[in-house]
Amino acid sequence: MKKVLLCEPNISEGRNLEVVEQVFDQIRQVEGVKILDSSSDADHNRSVFTYLGEPEAVLAATKGMAAKAIELIDMTQHQGSHPRMGAVDVVAFIPVRGIETEEAVEFARRFGKFLGGLGVPVYYYEDAATRPERDKLPKIRKGQYEALEEKLKDPAWTPDEGPAAFNPKSGATVTGVRFPLLAFNVNLRTTDLAIANRIARAVQHINGGYRYVRAIGLALEEEEMVQVSMNLINYTLTPIPRVLETIRSEAARHGVSVAGTEIVGPVPLDALEEVLKHYLQVHDFSMDQIIETALID
Amino acid sequence: MKKVLLCEPNISEGRNLEVVEQVFDQIRQVEGVKILDSSSDADHNRSVFTYLGEPEAVLAATKGMAAKAIELIDMTQHQGSHPRMGAVDVVAFIPVRGIETEEAVEFARRFGKFLGGLGVPVYYYEDAATRPERDKLPKIRKGQYEALEEKLKDPAWTPDEGPAAFNPKSGATVTGVRFPLLAFNVNLRTTDLAIANRIARAVQHINGGYRYVRAIGLALEEEEMVQVSMNLINYTLTPIPRVLETIRSEAARHGVSVAGTEIVGPVPLDALEEVLKHYLQVHDFSMDQIIETALID
Repeated sequence: MKKVLLCEPNISEGRNLEVVEQVFDQIRQVEGVKILDSSSDADHNRSVFTYLGEPEAVLAATKGMAAKAIELIDMTQHQGSHPRMGAVDVVAFIPVRGIETEEAVEFARRFGKFLGGLGVPVYYYEDAATRPERDKLPKIRKGQYEALEEKLKDPAWTPDEGPAAFNPKSGATVTGVRFPLLAFNVNLRTTDLAIANRIARAVQHINGGYRYVRAIGLALEEEEMVQVSMNLINYTLTPIPRVLETIRSEAARHGVSVAGTEIVGPVPLDALEEVLKHYLQVHDFSMDQIIETALID
Repeated sequence: MKKVLLCEPNISEGRNLEVVEQVFDQIRQVEGVKILDSSSDADHNRSVFTYLGEPEAVLAATKGMAAKAIELIDMTQHQGSHPRMGAVDVVAFIPVRGIETEEAVEFARRFGKFLGGLGVPVYYYEDAATRPERDKLPKIRKGQYEALEEKLKDPAWTPDEGPAAFNPKSGATVTGVRFPLLAFNVNLRTTDLAIANRIARAVQHINGGYRYVRAIGLALEEEEMVQVSMNLINYTLTPIPRVLETIRSEAARHGVSVAGTEIVGPVPLDALEEVLKHYLQVHDFSMDQIIETALID
């Protein structure tokens, strides 16, 4: 089995699409890298690329992408509604096939050293974290770009790579290895946002819900519905059917039914295994039975 | 996208495993062919191989396999509980990726000509059929090996390839192109076989059920359950969830619940699409969102 690493960088440019294209080109031109997704959000002023391939090719693409983003993006001019700390804001590496977390962490570290060498303070998070308090992205990014100059004077926030000095143009970067994240939304046949909010609170970790669920309620004005919009941050331990059936039951309590769901963006095949096993009650099914898996090198 | 053809030959030997291995070796030794499954049944006295790959490689493997089976299997000695007509009984070609039915039919015809050249009468069935009355396997195989000598004297049964003369050692072969067939079983929490039989009749085509379902009731003695054992012969037009939910509802009428289900053998990824769409109500999901599909050439 060939080794396959996935990478998902978030850069702080979502309005000037000429800049975004130039950065994206650095990924596209690397042989052996396959693009799964790319999207830019003007309101967030942020773009996300998703690509995978042989780990060395993915690392090369990521280095090229980051160097170009550092060159073209000026954080002193950046405004947007999404939390951010740097031009290359977050770079997540995700092991897909034939590669363990430890090996993926080595690639994240090689990327971190490269970016540090370009004069950007770098913090490692999730499975690449060097200290428990740097485990989670929101903790590292707290105060955002604007707090960075002060933060870097605090020895507790000495970067893992790069200078312990404020770089006004590029800010700082968070990189590491994490489990694939699943964006899963459930639409409800009501316009009552309070119901979506109530259900979001019921399923999400911080309010007593499922450990690996982050959720918010949203109004879908055009569709005249509301949505429980979620990130499932570990679909193995908190699988899709369990979350969906809980939402269905909570919604029924308000006389509301599930209108439909959305799985947004790329999803690993094994995230769907639990769906088959739960709803078909097919206890012994192996994903290797899927014919197409024989066609993967 | 590379072209991928799947082939599933059934040969009339399931007891002498030395013979089966020699026949199977002819498939295994062809480069570019991937084996998905192989199984021998002593009661049926029959073996099935499932493999796929680039169409020319699959054709070469199938020719080698058939030549060896013709050499080693003697139908004058054959007994078994499964209907059969020849040493190489049925050879189904199934388009998997990047290949249309028409092109797959050409491969089935090239195989048919090859086997005809070895002195075996060959009939084309399903999408390769040359006449409407040769559409379905049971029609062609009616009367089995034992009826073949008389049948070949009838101009209505002139073979599509090979001599219109009885070949006692090899019998005759049926080959063609068909939709992937899905073996799907539903286990019920009862030992009452009459309930499984009644439900099997309710869902299967000939008794007024779903067009693409063949079903029988079976007792699972050891598990103290009964089973509705099915072939779904077109999972696109008669999808898994519809069949399962009908069985669940019919079983509930007898106070019986579904204990579990089985998907036996290789299954195409798109057969699972309807499962996701039905149970998750995920209307816009594309199988291309599955990360692993990007790894298929």
